[in-house]
Amino acid sequence: MSAAGAFSLDQLMELAGLACAQTLATVYGKDKYPRVLVCCGPGNQGGDGLVAARHLGMFGYQPTIWMPKPGSKDIYKRLHSQCANMHIPTLDNSLDAMRDALSSHDVILDAIFGFSFKPPVRSPFDTALPLLSESSLPIVSVDIPSGWDVERGNAEGVGLEPDVLISLTAPKEGVKAFTGRHFLGGRFVPKTLEEKFQLNLPPYPGFDQIVELPRVSGSQKL
Amino acid sequence: MSAAGAFSLDQLMELAGLACAQTLATVYGKDKYPRVLVCCGPGNQGGDGLVAARHLGMFGYQPTIWMPKPGSKDIYKRLHSQCANMHIPTLDNSLDAMRDALSSHDVILDAIFGFSFKPPVRSPFDTALPLLSESSLPIVSVDIPSGWDVERGNAEGVGLEPDVLISLTAPKEGVKAFTGRHFLGGRFVPKTLEEKFQLNLPPYPGFDQIVELPRVSGSQKL
Repeated sequence: MSAAGAFSLDQLMELAGLACAQTLATVYGKDKYPRVLVCCGPGNQGGDGLVAARHLGMFGYQPTIWMPKPGSKDIYKRLHSQCANMHIPTLDNSLDAMRDALSSHDVILDAIFGFSFKPPVRSPFDTALPLLSESSLPIVSVDIPSGWDVERGNAEGVGLEPDVLISLTAPKEGVKAFTGRHFLGGRFVPKTLEEKFQLNLPPYPGFDQIVELPRVSGSQKL
Repeated sequence: MSAAGAFSLDQLMELAGLACAQTLATVYGKDKYPRVLVCCGPGNQGGDGLVAARHLGMFGYQPTIWMPKPGSKDIYKRLHSQCANMHIPTLDNSLDAMRDALSSHDVILDAIFGFSFKPPVRSPFDTALPLLSESSLPIVSVDIPSGWDVERGNAEGVGLEPDVLISLTAPKEGVKAFTGRHFLGGRFVPKTLEEKFQLNLPPYPGFDQIVELPRVSGSQKL
């Protein structure tokens, strides 16, 4: 990210993952939706998911991780260890394990693919995305719904259609027509960069780390 | 910290500094107290202060940093660069600069010494602490008021007497008789460690990163 400046990935991922966990907790309270299936991809998106899983555990949720293709970066291993130290379980890598988990969870956190996703969807995610879509569980997607193009959205029709989206740092072009509940997180973009890139971000209230964006009606395009 | 597990300093400091900034913002609103003098020591405490300064900037405050003896760890340089990138000014290292700043600021964030402080107070902090004490500005201290002993508190009488304290991960023995407003932050201690060390931490509300502790009356000792 060009806005990273002197930030480390550890810092950015911590704030991003915290915002993801807070968004899920805002919409799906832990009394009715305690069991969160956190689906993590192989890239930074998956790292955000691991951080979110840990914070959800701190908030009193019962998260379970499915991360069939863990990325090789050291940071993912550390983030995963932090979850293991908190006794957050990780499913085995199989699709069967994930399929079974769908029937014993209340909400899905989709941290599979991010804004740099390019088709085709590779195995096992080519099978996983339809399974998630066909489940009756609500889905919260991180930054951009998995399978969407950063500019063209779900034009290919292979992506998830989540109920809730948490955009990180700024909403991407491809999600401007997203009609579900839409939050913004990643409150670390300096004002100078916001102005330079004309991001026109909404003000965050007080010291909150997330802000809900105005909802787009079904027929309206921004 | 023994509770660090697989955590990196970047992560812990980010969450700690965020909690410090949120505590200050809870007590001293930015409309009445916009100008925050963030006084940073040479150790990890100073790092927490730098993170807090950045978040205060994001919240709309006008922080100024005084850090006369910057630590040599790379992380402090990075955290300082992040503040500079946000145009948060740093005073020159002199006591005069700090003395002048006291008259143009509304509240002090004390991130000078932490729980590993051992007397004597060395220069320039031996002069700085009395200057801060004598100013009429409210003081928010990070983890333990500067100059206090982690077990015996301000028994030596050389420490600050802040209005507000934000304990990190768990209140230290020496601050149990602190009578000001007292918050807890650093919401990253796994339940298993909390039980192992019998920390008896109060529950954080919802997904908040800070919780206010019951106030100790002046005559009462815990």
